[in-house]
Amino acid sequence: MAPPLSVSQWFNTAGPLTLEALRGRVVVLHAFQMLCPGCVAHGLPQAQAVHRQFAGDEVAVIGLHTVFEHHDAMTPVSLAAFLHEYRIGFPVGVDARGADGGDVPTTMRADGMRGTPTLVAIDRAGRIRVHAFGRVEDLAVGALIGRLLVAP
Amino acid sequence: MAPPLSVSQWFNTAGPLTLEALRGRVVVLHAFQMLCPGCVAHGLPQAQAVHRQFAGDEVAVIGLHTVFEHHDAMTPVSLAAFLHEYRIGFPVGVDARGADGGDVPTTMRADGMRGTPTLVAIDRAGRIRVHAFGRVEDLAVGALIGRLLVAP
Amino acid sequence: MAPPLSVSQWFNTAGPLTLEALRGRVVVLHAFQMLCPGCVAHGLPQAQAVHRQFAGDEVAVIGLHTVFEHHDAMTPVSLAAFLHEYRIGFPVGVDARGADGGDVPTTMRADGMRGTPTLVAIDRAGRIRVHAFGRVEDLAVGALIGRLLVAP
Amino acid sequence: MAPPLSVSQWFNTAGPLTLEALRGRVVVLHAFQMLCPGCVAHGLPQAQAVHRQFAGDEVAVIGLHTVFEHHDAMTPVSLAAFLHEYRIGFPVGVDARGADGGDVPTTMRADGMRGTPTLVAIDRAGRIRVHAFGRVEDLAVGALIGRLLVAP
Repeated sequence: MAPPLSVSQWFNTAGPLTLEALRGRVVVLHAFQMLCPGCVAHGLPQAQAVHRQFAGDEVAVIGLHTVFEHHDAMTPVSLAAFLHEYRIGFPVGVDARGADGGDVPTTMRADGMRGTPTLVAIDRAGRIRVHAFGRVEDLAVGALIGRLLVAP
Repeated sequence: MAPPLSVSQWFNTAGPLTLEALRGRVVVLHAFQMLCPGCVAHGLPQAQAVHRQFAGDEVAVIGLHTVFEHHDAMTPVSLAAFLHEYRIGFPVGVDARGADGGDVPTTMRADGMRGTPTLVAIDRAGRIRVHAFGRVEDLAVGALIGRLLVAP
Repeated sequence: MAPPLSVSQWFNTAGPLTLEALRGRVVVLHAFQMLCPGCVAHGLPQAQAVHRQFAGDEVAVIGLHTVFEHHDAMTPVSLAAFLHEYRIGFPVGVDARGADGGDVPTTMRADGMRGTPTLVAIDRAGRIRVHAFGRVEDLAVGALIGRLLVAP
Repeated sequence: MAPPLSVSQWFNTAGPLTLEALRGRVVVLHAFQMLCPGCVAHGLPQAQAVHRQFAGDEVAVIGLHTVFEHHDAMTPVSLAAFLHEYRIGFPVGVDARGADGGDVPTTMRADGMRGTPTLVAIDRAGRIRVHAFGRVEDLAVGALIGRLLVAP
């Protein structure tokens, strides 16, 4: 099962999101950093395309800002401007830093992510079905979502 | 149901292919012309990516050379060189011209295709599920195939 | 003549740069903002390509961070991380904000720039020869530099 | 000096072209084969961009169809359809095959070209200044033309 999201601040959503409340939909979680070139060039445009392509009551796209380096450079203030300038329309949460003050934020650590971008696909029952670090081709992402939409 | 393929010459296959013999697999039919810029830039690279991405016993990719103009320029001799130079690895059939000598070849007409590229997706039972003229994004093609692979 | 650079902080250079000291070289000035999508996707990669393509004693590439919006989001701390992550190797100056506290920084205003990205090409004698807002094709940038390198 | 063009058939021009008659202009010669993927993806679009970018009385773009393999597949009949479909607007000559019947056509051999695409840049005085096999970046092509336009 996917660990719960630990988010300190949300953007583009009226209230906090939880994976529990999204049960019944396929969830595509895109973990990114706003200054990660691969995220900006590929991961986020792909997430935007997924968000456009599928009905929101079938597929929920969630961005997770998993800052694990340059913390002073990628604050929520900078993220807000980034989301505005890049016209990111789906909900984005800021992954919460742990009480221990470690560099790797809480959800990223709980999920065992190795870096950004990371794509986590969660089925309608809340189980992680794919966990991919780095670039994944659109064709593969589409096939994955197509399967999860139909699979029992 | 998808009409049968009417092919005068095959490339990249030991013998003629029929849709009947492919029942049980998802079939992705890419209708193209070797001098159609949209086919060369998008349709055929996408078909190659589908061919690489999915197991051959699950998804069969078939190219159909539906020449409806410039017949003297896109002969099977030219097509053979084209397939070699572009490293097309999946089976390709030459859509047969009808006895009436019309410009539009037989399968293209039977299938009601409007031009090239056209993507026809056929489910495991032989039914046409998508029939798309022009560019289709990889994400949508992937989702379509993913659904057809799992759908009953 | 190009107005002098008014820079509050430099990156990627041992000391401050002045256009006067660069007389004799062609200067390509790329005005950008780190959260401007067109700058990240086109302007900065083009500036990097110019930096790689031409000898440094012939063509000087200078980035100018002309922040005119989202000032809190694009501070020098964030810029430093951005330059590191995007592997920007040429000198970059932060355009200084004026004493009047206006949003548009000093060099940007003196130069009459309308937004980002803006490309300013300065000839060996210090005269502005091209001033272009928005995307400029590589072919045109190359031709411009080629002409300025040879022109008397 | 550039060897003369040996052309058996011209397209997109009212009459035969000679390098002699083009003295005074910079000539950009793009040698290609219509079934060469690198030519279709990069070389020819670049030649089209050069043709659009520069005034015709300053820069002459000439395509040369240097077929050295698959001769039966790339006949003038096929080339005519190719030029039409790809909207090639500049003059294109078919490199003549020699009396000895060798595979490599006459101009290609005289020019010492190693394959396609090959870019040959000829200055206003008819001298070859660059001879490049394979992909050349737009920035470099632009710089080259810019220099040749101004150089004495």
